[in-house]
Amino acid sequence: MAIQIGNIKIGGPHFTVIAGPCSIESPEQFINTAQAVKASGAVILRGGIWKMRTSAQAFQGLGEEAFSMIQKVKALTGMGLISEITDISQVEATFDVVDAYQVGARNMHNYSLLKELGKQSKPVLLKRGFSAYIDEWLKASEYITNGGNQNVILCERGIRTFETATRNTLDINAVAYAKKHSGLPVIVDPSHAVGIADLVPQISYAAAAAGADGLMVEVHPDPSKALSDGAQALTFENFNKMMLQLERVLAAFDKGLNRLPQQMSSQHNEIHNPILM
Amino acid sequence: MAIQIGNIKIGGPHFTVIAGPCSIESPEQFINTAQAVKASGAVILRGGIWKMRTSAQAFQGLGEEAFSMIQKVKALTGMGLISEITDISQVEATFDVVDAYQVGARNMHNYSLLKELGKQSKPVLLKRGFSAYIDEWLKASEYITNGGNQNVILCERGIRTFETATRNTLDINAVAYAKKHSGLPVIVDPSHAVGIADLVPQISYAAAAAGADGLMVEVHPDPSKALSDGAQALTFENFNKMMLQLERVLAAFDKGLNRLPQQMSSQHNEIHNPILM
Amino acid sequence: MAIQIGNIKIGGPHFTVIAGPCSIESPEQFINTAQAVKASGAVILRGGIWKMRTSAQAFQGLGEEAFSMIQKVKALTGMGLISEITDISQVEATFDVVDAYQVGARNMHNYSLLKELGKQSKPVLLKRGFSAYIDEWLKASEYITNGGNQNVILCERGIRTFETATRNTLDINAVAYAKKHSGLPVIVDPSHAVGIADLVPQISYAAAAAGADGLMVEVHPDPSKALSDGAQALTFENFNKMMLQLERVLAAFDKGLNRLPQQMSSQHNEIHNPILM
Amino acid sequence: MAIQIGNIKIGGPHFTVIAGPCSIESPEQFINTAQAVKASGAVILRGGIWKMRTSAQAFQGLGEEAFSMIQKVKALTGMGLISEITDISQVEATFDVVDAYQVGARNMHNYSLLKELGKQSKPVLLKRGFSAYIDEWLKASEYITNGGNQNVILCERGIRTFETATRNTLDINAVAYAKKHSGLPVIVDPSHAVGIADLVPQISYAAAAAGADGLMVEVHPDPSKALSDGAQALTFENFNKMMLQLERVLAAFDKGLNRLPQQMSSQHNEIHNPILM
Repeated sequence: MAIQIGNIKIGGPHFTVIAGPCSIESPEQFINTAQAVKASGAVILRGGIWKMRTSAQAFQGLGEEAFSMIQKVKALTGMGLISEITDISQVEATFDVVDAYQVGARNMHNYSLLKELGKQSKPVLLKRGFSAYIDEWLKASEYITNGGNQNVILCERGIRTFETATRNTLDINAVAYAKKHSGLPVIVDPSHAVGIADLVPQISYAAAAAGADGLMVEVHPDPSKALSDGAQALTFENFNKMMLQLERVLAAFDKGLNRLPQQMSSQHNEIHNPILM
Repeated sequence: MAIQIGNIKIGGPHFTVIAGPCSIESPEQFINTAQAVKASGAVILRGGIWKMRTSAQAFQGLGEEAFSMIQKVKALTGMGLISEITDISQVEATFDVVDAYQVGARNMHNYSLLKELGKQSKPVLLKRGFSAYIDEWLKASEYITNGGNQNVILCERGIRTFETATRNTLDINAVAYAKKHSGLPVIVDPSHAVGIADLVPQISYAAAAAGADGLMVEVHPDPSKALSDGAQALTFENFNKMMLQLERVLAAFDKGLNRLPQQMSSQHNEIHNPILM
Repeated sequence: MAIQIGNIKIGGPHFTVIAGPCSIESPEQFINTAQAVKASGAVILRGGIWKMRTSAQAFQGLGEEAFSMIQKVKALTGMGLISEITDISQVEATFDVVDAYQVGARNMHNYSLLKELGKQSKPVLLKRGFSAYIDEWLKASEYITNGGNQNVILCERGIRTFETATRNTLDINAVAYAKKHSGLPVIVDPSHAVGIADLVPQISYAAAAAGADGLMVEVHPDPSKALSDGAQALTFENFNKMMLQLERVLAAFDKGLNRLPQQMSSQHNEIHNPILM
Repeated sequence: MAIQIGNIKIGGPHFTVIAGPCSIESPEQFINTAQAVKASGAVILRGGIWKMRTSAQAFQGLGEEAFSMIQKVKALTGMGLISEITDISQVEATFDVVDAYQVGARNMHNYSLLKELGKQSKPVLLKRGFSAYIDEWLKASEYITNGGNQNVILCERGIRTFETATRNTLDINAVAYAKKHSGLPVIVDPSHAVGIADLVPQISYAAAAAGADGLMVEVHPDPSKALSDGAQALTFENFNKMMLQLERVLAAFDKGLNRLPQQMSSQHNEIHNPILM
């Protein structure tokens, strides 16, 4: 079943790239990133409003300050936004600014939140908990679908294993397994899954080749200055290069990239020259 | 620092045993279990009101139906109750019936819930997420203490590893490590940690010997008929035997069991003859 | 650096497919499989002579009985053989029949064996231990290369994690990471990595897309009757289909399949009609 | 079944402490450690002759240079020695100096070695592989016992999990589980299991309380100067303190320490004043 986010169908014949910064940090950072990822072929934005951080002292996101930036960027680019909510109260608070709710890995087992999202009609991107069995992940999706909201997209983002050289271990088996055993679209977050920007492209190609329906990728104008997760964010240039190769991989499976109505296939070859808001 | 729950100090010189059923299932089941575990030396009750279940179809707990039973059992036994809340709304809903809020493994990263509990004064039992680093667990506790509520008790309940012969893997190292690196009391849930009733006693003795401040143990009048987690629940008789041996282990460290004001040390040798409500 | 096995260079510009049965079971099984995988584009054979089995009671391989079969099949097909040795004494015993020695996951830390292989000139395929850090795997390779044998090929075959739905968890990150941090060719064993024949093709495409230099795949004339690992073996037909799609994935990276001198690209489209020995 | 090493029965009614340095480094280090651990109540020595090291560059042990030191120390103390062999050739090479062969975690799956040990009569201490299922460990023991050597002692030494604060994760559940499901003695290596000297005593008490038949502990005259594993070695003083408390824990189970024929219970209270060889 394909899930519609704005004009884009996730889980249909084509492949969907969601991209943007880990956190929305400032108007310049967000608009520049949005325009750059759009120019390279992304069709939906990601961007954190409230961040879940292990430490209560770390940067927690802009919160409601980000709302007006989001409205402007969406109007300017015509792109929808997926953003994480960590709390039932945020379902309503973000209703006007997000086009799909993201449930993060740490909340995959937050059944109260899942049940609340089951009452909504907006799509839900459900990340796999970092040590959830595939089966628990599929069952967690039923807390949403049983409530009446069938618009669930699964997202594999790496699991926690003994290995420490990479941030997490992308469970590529789980992508193939979940595609076979659920009727839901499955996308991959290569940025959290490997945690090393240099390796994000190969991991992304692998995800496409394993049959994923899309990617959610972190991109930042200057990863070294990112307020969160800089080590795994792609620059505009590297994201653009990756998208070109990704199209070739998809073509090997008779697939293409999902595109915004106005996007031309020629457009994404040039790196966007950002205009500040 | 010792944390007070009713008349009982957790984390002081003596050892605290919390016991009761996984879920509160009926008045008979709860009162009988309460009286039996009290007779054997437990000083605080456990009992699930709402259960977090992987499957939306499994028994989800009695919910508010349990409240009046809890009030009666507490009055009758003089014991406090620890029960899991899975949602901010339950903080207020359970205020009159619980003496300490339990945050389960699946919610250790539910920072909204932790922050809300930071505004309360009742103690919080914070279970370790089943794949949380010890360091994440200690940092999660700061989401509560930073809010002003210093009454946090840590609970190791087993982690998820490759091993499948046991339900989880008790991280006994983590008990010693958390005792050294946090100023908080640390207790162990041997029932979830091993998941096999036969092995619960040995695991409990090990926890005491490693320096834990207490245990939280599942006990059921007839484990084979339990609506949840029967395989790991002790019968009244086996719980009583375990408590006798546990006292000997504690004595080797010049410790004893924490006792309710009225409890006599002789009492806990005989299995309580239950009186129905 | 490319490693030569017979006429085939592993780790050069093209992609190498090694295929064959888990265990060599009989002349018919081995020759038929060899001819079928050759017809589909495989260029090196795999086939177990002695099997490492968890249980001392399980089928342990044909042992030296297999030697004459191997000689015939190699002569007939012109393909080289990679086979596992589990013991120093087998280095000499198999010298005349194997073209590369495989060190299995259980022996990655068998440093005596690695040192002995360091004195040889034949290539060594070093599988990653199922819970070895990538770094330990790379260091294990130095036990061989420090001895003077530079012909080491790394093979990722899945790691042991908490997940039980699949046999192991293919660490696709490790493929990209090892390619970047070692100068050695890296191949993938999709059969052990996922353990479910239906999912082997997707996992194989993912490996190619992540930059692996080749695959080692289990193929059997009748997987349901295999004496070991039948659940993960491909039929001749499914292997052939997979090879056709694999070529398309490789083409997206301007790569092709490594071929035997006499192979024509047209040949591998038809399933070989086996002739018994 | 109890296994005899010299005069000591492992797995009988009493608890056996094996202690000594990680590696035998020099005559002074070895004799001093042996006398100190004997004075504190250890009854069997441990000490590495050849070390398995992840890196081919790290200290690999004294090898045969250690043999004459071992003979002297054994004669002087009357204690037997357990030492790791990593290779079939070492079975014969060490025959005159070791009283029990240790198979390390990295060799638990080295079935050639296990089969060879099955032909011997000397006891074998079989460590659990660091990611072996309990069931694989028990099956590995059958490679020895099926060969005719029933003298197998199991040793839990910690498993590899996601946790990084401690060196490994002691699987205390596995101690209780293996005691129940095998007829073999089970001991614990707390030094490798936690990897932090400060926490070794609590882990040791936990092992005794869980029902282990003994411990194998690393002790060094000056841990900060140890050539291997110094961070986890106890000083003589801390080992002595631990032994005093351990006896109290054992007494809670009506057990005591196994003793050498000449040892007096008073002896082990004073730290031995070492005499250089």
